[in-house]
Amino acid sequence: MNGAESLVRTLVSSGVNTCFSNPGTSEMHFVAATDQVDDMRTILCLFEGVATGAADGYGRMKGSPAATLLHLGPGLANGLANLHNARRASTPIVNVVGDHATYHKQFDAPLNSDVDGFARPVSGWIHSSTSAATVASDAARAVAASMEGHGQIATLILPADTAWDEAGGPAPPLERPLLSAPDPDAIMRAAVALSSKRSSILLLGADALYGEGLRHAGRIAEATGARLFCPTSTPRRERGHGRVQVQPLRYFGEQIEEDLAGVQSMVVAGARPPVSFFAYPGKASWLTPNNCEITYASQSHESAAMALGALADELGAAAEPTALAAHKTQLPADHDALNQFTVGAVIAHELPEGTIVSDEATTSGIGPALSTQTAPPHEWLSLMGGSIGQGLPLATGAAVACPDRKTLCLHGDGGAMYTLQALWTQAREQLDVTTVIFSNRAYAILAIEFGRVGVGAPGPNALSQLDLHNPDLDWVKLAEGMGVSASKSTTVKEFREQFQSTMKTRGPHLIEVEI
Amino acid sequence: MNGAESLVRTLVSSGVNTCFSNPGTSEMHFVAATDQVDDMRTILCLFEGVATGAADGYGRMKGSPAATLLHLGPGLANGLANLHNARRASTPIVNVVGDHATYHKQFDAPLNSDVDGFARPVSGWIHSSTSAATVASDAARAVAASMEGHGQIATLILPADTAWDEAGGPAPPLERPLLSAPDPDAIMRAAVALSSKRSSILLLGADALYGEGLRHAGRIAEATGARLFCPTSTPRRERGHGRVQVQPLRYFGEQIEEDLAGVQSMVVAGARPPVSFFAYPGKASWLTPNNCEITYASQSHESAAMALGALADELGAAAEPTALAAHKTQLPADHDALNQFTVGAVIAHELPEGTIVSDEATTSGIGPALSTQTAPPHEWLSLMGGSIGQGLPLATGAAVACPDRKTLCLHGDGGAMYTLQALWTQAREQLDVTTVIFSNRAYAILAIEFGRVGVGAPGPNALSQLDLHNPDLDWVKLAEGMGVSASKSTTVKEFREQFQSTMKTRGPHLIEVEI
Repeated sequence: MNGAESLVRTLVSSGVNTCFSNPGTSEMHFVAATDQVDDMRTILCLFEGVATGAADGYGRMKGSPAATLLHLGPGLANGLANLHNARRASTPIVNVVGDHATYHKQFDAPLNSDVDGFARPVSGWIHSSTSAATVASDAARAVAASMEGHGQIATLILPADTAWDEAGGPAPPLERPLLSAPDPDAIMRAAVALSSKRSSILLLGADALYGEGLRHAGRIAEATGARLFCPTSTPRRERGHGRVQVQPLRYFGEQIEEDLAGVQSMVVAGARPPVSFFAYPGKASWLTPNNCEITYASQSHESAAMALGALADELGAAAEPTALAAHKTQLPADHDALNQFTVGAVIAHELPEGTIVSDEATTSGIGPALSTQTAPPHEWLSLMGGSIGQGLPLATGAAVACPDRKTLCLHGDGGAMYTLQALWTQAREQLDVTTVIFSNRAYAILAIEFGRVGVGAPGPNALSQLDLHNPDLDWVKLAEGMGVSASKSTTVKEFREQFQSTMKTRGPHLIEVEI
Repeated sequence: MNGAESLVRTLVSSGVNTCFSNPGTSEMHFVAATDQVDDMRTILCLFEGVATGAADGYGRMKGSPAATLLHLGPGLANGLANLHNARRASTPIVNVVGDHATYHKQFDAPLNSDVDGFARPVSGWIHSSTSAATVASDAARAVAASMEGHGQIATLILPADTAWDEAGGPAPPLERPLLSAPDPDAIMRAAVALSSKRSSILLLGADALYGEGLRHAGRIAEATGARLFCPTSTPRRERGHGRVQVQPLRYFGEQIEEDLAGVQSMVVAGARPPVSFFAYPGKASWLTPNNCEITYASQSHESAAMALGALADELGAAAEPTALAAHKTQLPADHDALNQFTVGAVIAHELPEGTIVSDEATTSGIGPALSTQTAPPHEWLSLMGGSIGQGLPLATGAAVACPDRKTLCLHGDGGAMYTLQALWTQAREQLDVTTVIFSNRAYAILAIEFGRVGVGAPGPNALSQLDLHNPDLDWVKLAEGMGVSASKSTTVKEFREQFQSTMKTRGPHLIEVEI
């Protein structure tokens, strides 16, 4: 067996059985090995940013990594922006990056580059294999490394000769690294902070936002009166009917300052205190009130969910939370104006239970986020690193991870253009993803930001950089060009009918909402 | 005047008046400054790889840099693959990469990243401005740095506060760095090498492949009998009727070994001796025959064109070359099969004089390259770094640089998917670019490479990674979705009529050739 086969067999036995790939010549032995190894599903993506974004969506939903297969330094480079986003989500991912044969590097052929240099800013673990004999154990280490803490990016660089030379065989899987148990002193400090009479909040992230963690958060809130908040963006959050409600901090710094006004005590579990997304002249970067005490119930190497469980018990909280979101939705009238709020109301009303929502709707996202608070229960995945162009790939990967659930992608038109190739993979794999494009023909967030940075009104040159008219993008044609059926909604009635239809059928579909 | 305005004014006075941009909030002061400064043309791209690839095409044709405007580390990351290609082309480019305000970095907001780390593998020069007071002089230095040698990538990182704080004013332009004059000893050694009776070739690159350099190469060939070769890929090459003919080395190592068989003396000017594009088990990496003497007429800091002029004079060559390519083209019959050779014949017959050809046709490129050798004179731009997805942006930038010439982009369908967003910029700017997509629904080069790496025939899993059927891409819809008119050719007659029509009209058009 060659190094590539020992690698693929090791990945599979380590639990990594899905690979989002965009291979080239230097990865052909890996590709060939997938014919020799059962149980490795290799999913072709037509751009590397799709592969890395899909691995993010997959990893968030599975809690264990998918692999990516990328073609040398430039192939990795095309995937870096969504790896940046995945790093901010603490998603486990194993990148396999082919490279020139070890003896060929010296000739500096055209595709030669500093692969390690490209990988470093996004990777928690990097290794370049030096021999086919050790590729298998390198792979086992990469998988384990990707699951350190809440998850991180492990990049394994695979010189071509380490893939094609003879290897011994696969390596046994390593034990999955476990998150540390809660620190009793930290739990005690958090309990004291919440037991005082001050205005208190819990700021929740990571595994505190779904499953047991969210349940414990609700127990604590009911026992102490503390309000539950989470950061503006969160990797994975359960919400809707029957779930404990958590209020996300809003986007702009001034809004977060309003959200936190009067808060005297902030207990943090799985998150970090909020900072301004960007700096602005004369505006604050650090947004926690000056007289607010911050107490960490958990650190990043610990499970926030377990910490909240210990904290709830310490506080003598009831075993189950009772204040849960109601089920309350209402369709808009067919003659209402089509906008993010009416679109959001339709989505909330029609959302199948268990839907996974990939949200990169930016300025059009408020309506859907509000309406779905009381929709059937679902999970919400946000853009974590701010690099737009994550939503379509993220939905793609989430749909691969959870084939029995509907995936809904809410996306602004500007951001969707960065990685629109994801639609082709959705068509090829017949993934059950509905994409709603909010088509306002603008980088609308930038028009707002322009007004915030203190340079007056935009002139014609500046406007040309914020506006996506001339020419108008036609998302129906773009989707159909990649094999995804598509429709356009210009009225509430059209959107309702199209959305109802796609919620009842399986497979990819795109709706362009002209707003 | 703030730092951003001092920067934009300095760029313009340093000769940089075109900026391919994809800005975000941290670049809003730069965007606002373009309303204050005449003569800076800012061209919006909907993906950063389009911006950097366009800057490559622009810089190759102008010999001086365009700027790019990119949004923090992830925005730069999306542009890295085409910066890798531009680095291999020695193209001058000035990247302006916004970053968080200097005082905001410490808060590690979501978009914070190691911008310098992302930039390093592709940049010859990197600087992060520390104050608005020095941004202007930093910009002047970046422009000069981008023109060191034959050209390189200069990356200027612009923290937001250095853009918005008050600055003194623009900085004066620095002198353009000049290439060194030829080394008389090297010229003498090359003259001796070419005067022997051995089988000799000249291997030409950089500025030896157009204008005066190419003319001098022809003089030398006629004086000495040396044959003229160039690498498989070259940044910019004049060819066609009336031009000195140069034979590119073929792609695969064995082919290059055949091309060079029996060569005893290789004189190199502006190039490097060929190496295999990839390593393969049991195949050579270094391709120059063992007994072939290599003599460098110029080094990378010298002008190859000037070196060849000195060498031609030293050899007593005639003042003008006389063996020039004839004008010889012939249309195929309408009933001939549609393939790269008949498509190439049509292109050669209809090509307007002075056309700029951006070639990323890969496995479909041989036909057009052969036919156009005797077409009307034109220039040929190759993919230099092997990272596919360069051709559409490169054509975009070349068309901006040379608005009075037709630009023709020849592209494989697989590669074109990486940066298809370039079509939108072509539509918005109404660039005179005709794109021919060779639609074979495959990574055809990979099917060939699979056969070369010694792993037998591909099984179903491997085939799924090489084949782009299921679903078929529809390039007419993709182009129209971005505002570019498009047509599909399934016969020679259709292609001839469509190509003739687009050669006679201005503005962007795409032809999908189903082969």
